[in-house]
Amino acid sequence: MDLLSIKDPAFLKKLSIDDLYELSADIRSFLIETLSVSGGHIGPNLGVVELTVALHKEFNSPTDKFLWDVGHQSYVHKLLTGRGKDFDTIRQYKGLCGFPKRDESEHDVWETGHSSTSLSGAMGMAAARDLKGTKEFIVPIIGDGALTGGMALEALNHIGHEQKDMIVILNDNEMSIAPNVGAIHTMLSRLRTAGKYQWVKDELEYLLKRIPAVGGKLASTAERVKDSLKYLLVSGMFFEELGFTYYGPVDGHSYEELFSNLQAAKKTNGPVLLHVITKKGKGYKPAETDTIGTWHGPGPYKMDTGDFVKPKAAAPAWSALVSETVRKLARKDDRIVAITPAMPVGSKLEGFASEFPDRMFDVGIAEQHATTMAAGLATQNMKPFLAIYSTFLQRAYDQVVHDICRQNLNVFIGIDRAGLVGADGETHQGVFDIAFMRHLPNMVLMMPKDENEGQHMVNTAIQYNDGPIAMRYPRGNGIGVKLDSELKTIPIGTWEVLRPGTDAVILTFGTTIQMALKAAEELQKEGRSVRVVNARFIKPLDEKMLKKILSDGLPILTIEEAVLQGGFGSAVLEFAYDESSRHPLIDRMGIPDRFIEHGSVPKLLEEVGLTVDQIVHRIRRLTFANHRKGIGS
Amino acid sequence: MDLLSIKDPAFLKKLSIDDLYELSADIRSFLIETLSVSGGHIGPNLGVVELTVALHKEFNSPTDKFLWDVGHQSYVHKLLTGRGKDFDTIRQYKGLCGFPKRDESEHDVWETGHSSTSLSGAMGMAAARDLKGTKEFIVPIIGDGALTGGMALEALNHIGHEQKDMIVILNDNEMSIAPNVGAIHTMLSRLRTAGKYQWVKDELEYLLKRIPAVGGKLASTAERVKDSLKYLLVSGMFFEELGFTYYGPVDGHSYEELFSNLQAAKKTNGPVLLHVITKKGKGYKPAETDTIGTWHGPGPYKMDTGDFVKPKAAAPAWSALVSETVRKLARKDDRIVAITPAMPVGSKLEGFASEFPDRMFDVGIAEQHATTMAAGLATQNMKPFLAIYSTFLQRAYDQVVHDICRQNLNVFIGIDRAGLVGADGETHQGVFDIAFMRHLPNMVLMMPKDENEGQHMVNTAIQYNDGPIAMRYPRGNGIGVKLDSELKTIPIGTWEVLRPGTDAVILTFGTTIQMALKAAEELQKEGRSVRVVNARFIKPLDEKMLKKILSDGLPILTIEEAVLQGGFGSAVLEFAYDESSRHPLIDRMGIPDRFIEHGSVPKLLEEVGLTVDQIVHRIRRLTFANHRKGIGS
Repeated sequence: MDLLSIKDPAFLKKLSIDDLYELSADIRSFLIETLSVSGGHIGPNLGVVELTVALHKEFNSPTDKFLWDVGHQSYVHKLLTGRGKDFDTIRQYKGLCGFPKRDESEHDVWETGHSSTSLSGAMGMAAARDLKGTKEFIVPIIGDGALTGGMALEALNHIGHEQKDMIVILNDNEMSIAPNVGAIHTMLSRLRTAGKYQWVKDELEYLLKRIPAVGGKLASTAERVKDSLKYLLVSGMFFEELGFTYYGPVDGHSYEELFSNLQAAKKTNGPVLLHVITKKGKGYKPAETDTIGTWHGPGPYKMDTGDFVKPKAAAPAWSALVSETVRKLARKDDRIVAITPAMPVGSKLEGFASEFPDRMFDVGIAEQHATTMAAGLATQNMKPFLAIYSTFLQRAYDQVVHDICRQNLNVFIGIDRAGLVGADGETHQGVFDIAFMRHLPNMVLMMPKDENEGQHMVNTAIQYNDGPIAMRYPRGNGIGVKLDSELKTIPIGTWEVLRPGTDAVILTFGTTIQMALKAAEELQKEGRSVRVVNARFIKPLDEKMLKKILSDGLPILTIEEAVLQGGFGSAVLEFAYDESSRHPLIDRMGIPDRFIEHGSVPKLLEEVGLTVDQIVHRIRRLTFANHRKGIGS
Repeated sequence: MDLLSIKDPAFLKKLSIDDLYELSADIRSFLIETLSVSGGHIGPNLGVVELTVALHKEFNSPTDKFLWDVGHQSYVHKLLTGRGKDFDTIRQYKGLCGFPKRDESEHDVWETGHSSTSLSGAMGMAAARDLKGTKEFIVPIIGDGALTGGMALEALNHIGHEQKDMIVILNDNEMSIAPNVGAIHTMLSRLRTAGKYQWVKDELEYLLKRIPAVGGKLASTAERVKDSLKYLLVSGMFFEELGFTYYGPVDGHSYEELFSNLQAAKKTNGPVLLHVITKKGKGYKPAETDTIGTWHGPGPYKMDTGDFVKPKAAAPAWSALVSETVRKLARKDDRIVAITPAMPVGSKLEGFASEFPDRMFDVGIAEQHATTMAAGLATQNMKPFLAIYSTFLQRAYDQVVHDICRQNLNVFIGIDRAGLVGADGETHQGVFDIAFMRHLPNMVLMMPKDENEGQHMVNTAIQYNDGPIAMRYPRGNGIGVKLDSELKTIPIGTWEVLRPGTDAVILTFGTTIQMALKAAEELQKEGRSVRVVNARFIKPLDEKMLKKILSDGLPILTIEEAVLQGGFGSAVLEFAYDESSRHPLIDRMGIPDRFIEHGSVPKLLEEVGLTVDQIVHRIRRLTFANHRKGIGS
């Protein structure tokens, strides 16, 4: 059928099961074709085609509420709710968002991006419903990976206690982003194969009925045995223990099974957990056979072969550079261990893991535990490297404050994907970390200008023994500089002059350094001599160099790919006011006080004004004002 | 025995069980007497006397590692490790800390204060041990309340998966700080009474042995039944499911039971969960009969009667003022609901709870879930009031960013215990919230000058419909002003001049306003005219008023009881530089870049330089410099 003409999911009500299977095939072809051009979360979405169709047929969205945990599996939902015609814009600037978005459709009632939030959101919605006395269904859809996130477990505990009506769909694809980790996963595996034990239960019930009652005791014993079997064999006793009625496991690609179970769930009072088994990448061979997560959210690919259309990178990926440098150091220092919260592939830790399997800990989606476990390792004189995306480190803020910084432990935090990340959009931009890390006592925070400095900085972090140290690095690849063969250490709190200049000073670090250098070159042409400083230590500042700049009265421009409020530029302002009686002109460039949506990084940088042209403009303004000021004084 | 003479726990090895019971009685008397003068966490510590003694007799600290979750139950541990002689200084300035502290004793291997961190710390220590090939025991001691914190659940999942040797002591006192909440609690209650079902298991095994085998099937069925019974009835199947060997429940006041189970646990490979039942306040009648948490951490009391020695407060407690105002508003607006993460008593929500039981949600120790549940409620047009201590809001940073601010939802966050909190010390100081909230898009952040403005601000927050809004308020009582009978709203982003002045301007809010007014009075005597502004909106600033101050060129002093870096003063600096070409003198007072230990609030304010004298000094310096600047220009 013509998927682009779908206005809302009402048409599903009239379709037969056969029609639905046909529709599913159409949806799959559409996704495989469209995403081969745009890239996107193909694997997760191919896995939930039947599940999403079944949900929209069985329930009435938006009266009934679907909460898509993480949300990268909401493409089919977007298709069925009238957004097919915009699908070629997905994850692009001003196009469809790759996650649920409330201002995109009334069917998107809960925005996600980070994992494990859907159950808490659903609990809030259920509480609201019951207070209002309405009757809608609340249906969070959560993956087996997201289920191990602490807040999902907190929510399960509370929902079970409150006994709110709610149908939790556990979308179990045996893999979150990378293969799953943890005891809960093992338990789900057991449930997944438990169907075949149904006969055991039946048989035992038959037997027990034939055992004569002994002094009244046996009756209750028999009841109890039935209960326990129900728990043990087919009913997901973990969830039953928490107060949920468990249905499943259900084949998530069978409409027959989905409908009969959804209908049973709708008639059940209290919280229900419906365990649905799906296959990531279902219906597209290259994605279906993926075992490590390559097809979780790839870029464009050749539809027929499944080969990725990836421009050959001229320089190593930042994640690889950092993880491989840690690996190299780990050969000489057996105190080094690596920790990742479910991102071994994204953080390029496969090499480390295969060389040092005992020293690699993938803890699953559990950022808090990962961070505090690193603290525990550090108390025993180990050297933990915590590889974590900037946006996910937000979830471990308290653990960084309370467990790492307060105990002043030697943990090296690799803040991956710092700065704008592009297509994943506002839930994933790594723009807050400076503002939420800079005020923490004992923390050292740095960012390298290129991959060669990056490897030296990794070495610096590993050799550092005075407390926590964090290094930011961006998504994507380096700039292609040559790597020194010997690793050096960089003195803590030292900046570096990259280009001399006498009219103004640019203080910046990381990705924006190249921009600053270009701008300085442009400005040279008009006779403005601009010094460019690699302010690689965000905390502590290079106080000696900064004092000199301040006492020379040079106007300063700070540039950061991070939020302005409380950021690096503010640190410079604070220092200028605390340490110097002279207050030169200081201008700050960075991310403004709003969430930044998805789009290519260059496009977003332009939107927020982080461009060579803007730097040129700001420096012109600063030097002009400084000139005037000079004349006036 | 003379508890003050204890140097280390070695002496325990020689004591008989009878000696130990005698020692326990001595410890109890000591605690009851000492804490009657100093105040402190009497209830939790009386509950763990035998447990702590048993642990120190059975294990060898500090080689074996004890991790006291939350840590307020570590007093007996402190006594046994040679700190009895300093006990009269506990929780006082420069005295013993009320929580484990690594620089206080080699026996304190893990610092706590916030809940649910011990299992992750233990996992780190166990991983380090196994890599080093040493053999020490790792023993986290965690309460049933702390167990529902998401990160503890994340850790259980990971530890069960990794099968690390570790003995987790579940200290189950049926109450965390307030009575426990949640499905896990219900499950623990079931286990607690499960001992009596041992006969069911025995009986069933007997019966099953007598059932003739039917075609081979029954043998495995019988095995399975035994397994399931083991799980269901006596073995804590929740923990077994997660990969732990479960022992218990054990009477935590019986040395006989404790030793036999600890010895069994020591011989068991992989992670063990030992479920110990204790009674909070054991041995002191007033504390033992407490059902709501009054004796969790009280101030001084009369030993014989258990009456609290509390100076009669002249003004209402801030928590009460806020919660009671919300309650009053809830009578007219049925969209208002209240959420607390396990602090109904601390947040004084008992009145609200008894009047609106359906609209009150105590979610247990689960700050992340509490925060995102509030977001879920807000999507359905409810008006959630999330009452949370500043220090615990740290644990929900990502939920505030990702779920509340990003979706721009109408959640009212009551940030209780903002600023210095005193005796609880560095883990509990509420000094980071401005720095971690101010950079969040859509957030309104405010703090009232007194309880009358406080009630109007609560009303303002409830009436506000443009997104999240948060109000900070301090620990302790108001200043005793009269409360208006009619509630007003305060225009968002407006400050208020409390005292006119033409030589300098003080911008401050909340607790430091009274200091500023006193300082201004002093300064008046020497002819300096100082304006004092109630900068009650920390975000957004009163831009109109600030612009005027800047254009008048008045020197500014900002004062905040919060960290300086990225704080309110920095917001003023940022604004001055972004919005004005004139840069008057700006000086900032606040908390320096280090963790602030325990002590009385006045003592701590003096230590960090937040005093009337300092304000006077800073204003003198500012006005002098401004005068010079005026002459020079």
